[in-house]
Amino acid sequence: MVYRTGSELRAAARSGAFTEHTSGRAPGYVQANLVVLPRDWAYDFLVFAQRNPKPCPVLEVGEAGDPCTSVLADDGDVRTDIPLYRVYEHGELVEEIPEITSRWRDDLVFFLLGCSFTFERALLDAGLALRHQDENRNVPMYRTNIICRGAGRFLSSPMVVSMRPYLPRDAIRAVEITREFPGVHGSPVHIGDPEHIGISRIDRPDWGDSVSIRSGEMPVFWACGITPQLAALVSKPPLMITHAPGYMFAGDRSDYAFHLSG
Amino acid sequence: MVYRTGSELRAAARSGAFTEHTSGRAPGYVQANLVVLPRDWAYDFLVFAQRNPKPCPVLEVGEAGDPCTSVLADDGDVRTDIPLYRVYEHGELVEEIPEITSRWRDDLVFFLLGCSFTFERALLDAGLALRHQDENRNVPMYRTNIICRGAGRFLSSPMVVSMRPYLPRDAIRAVEITREFPGVHGSPVHIGDPEHIGISRIDRPDWGDSVSIRSGEMPVFWACGITPQLAALVSKPPLMITHAPGYMFAGDRSDYAFHLSG
Repeated sequence: MVYRTGSELRAAARSGAFTEHTSGRAPGYVQANLVVLPRDWAYDFLVFAQRNPKPCPVLEVGEAGDPCTSVLADDGDVRTDIPLYRVYEHGELVEEIPEITSRWRDDLVFFLLGCSFTFERALLDAGLALRHQDENRNVPMYRTNIICRGAGRFLSSPMVVSMRPYLPRDAIRAVEITREFPGVHGSPVHIGDPEHIGISRIDRPDWGDSVSIRSGEMPVFWACGITPQLAALVSKPPLMITHAPGYMFAGDRSDYAFHLSG
Repeated sequence: MVYRTGSELRAAARSGAFTEHTSGRAPGYVQANLVVLPRDWAYDFLVFAQRNPKPCPVLEVGEAGDPCTSVLADDGDVRTDIPLYRVYEHGELVEEIPEITSRWRDDLVFFLLGCSFTFERALLDAGLALRHQDENRNVPMYRTNIICRGAGRFLSSPMVVSMRPYLPRDAIRAVEITREFPGVHGSPVHIGDPEHIGISRIDRPDWGDSVSIRSGEMPVFWACGITPQLAALVSKPPLMITHAPGYMFAGDRSDYAFHLSG
């Protein structure tokens, strides 16, 4: 299912009609990662994001207790508008659920972070195919040995990356295009040998699905907004709620609004 | 006086030997705005900065009680390394002093924000003159009618801009060049008619010095890191310490490290 707008995708997720990953499902609209934390942990997370802007570009911060968005979407509700959520308690993933209304509290603060799905239309517009979309899969995501800087109780932890395979000439184009989208991860963090960033099995992503890499292609890796979920595992906030990898919040703003000139 | 490195400028400011504004005084090195707040106010300020990234691009956040820098400079001390500081109490500017050691407390957090002096070398390298440097003056800064979004106790308040005059063809080049430096205010927020952004007297800047605008030139306005000082006037934190306008923190990192490709 492909929706005409981010608003339509959110409505479908809210009603339970749409339960899949969101890559390419609202073409032309910004998509975002979700992090929800108690207000008491929010400062440490915001400093963590400031120190690690490639994986954690903050696009919107809510007020404590308020689940409604105003920057990325006029009438978004982060409790219901994402197809699938993850709940972490004291560093453990305790459940995956389709909405978090019953979990919401007056002291919770939401953060929406840029997502690389936002620059996928720009890649397509430049003639660069997206293998995961062509193969009807979620984008593959990997834990790396690139270590993020800690901030207070948010401890240093590994960066997560998403991967798209390209021929070298297209990898160069992909760098040129995505550097123009710094708020949604920007240019890649690595190109080529996966082992160089600690990925031993490129055919076994830690999240999302495996995609084929054809002869002559090289994997191209972008920082990924799943990174805070790894930080949660070691930092053990009493409660942290996120989206499930690849199941994003779709906004009302154009993806090209996150171009450097947007 | 022009110093060979940011470290030399900091040492001169620390010893009291250098007491002037810093535009062009450590060519090739990053310069930054300072904001110091009690830990209790730090979260609201960081959200304010997230919501107003053009005037408030955060480059480094210290730990509570620690005045030492590690990102912009290896051995910087924000209590002594700036030529002139301003102290605000409950929304009033109470003093301008050359160091803040006696004012430092265990609960204070420093923020270093990008400064447009950082892209001045790139403008010079492209053949674009800097009128304030040519006339041996501090850059002119103005209060505008562009309103920043509030965040918690940091209330919405006017954006401050710096101004450099250019012929139209050079103004275009200045946009092209500075867009590549998003962490130090990036592209201009306005070009041309000062009244359009609420500036009635271009010859009477609110901070810094007036510079001449020659026939055919238009004023070009960039967001400025003095903006938090206006927010302090209305938001009235019990204590906020900043640099004096134009008297910046000079770092060890190259100014070109803040280029989009840096």
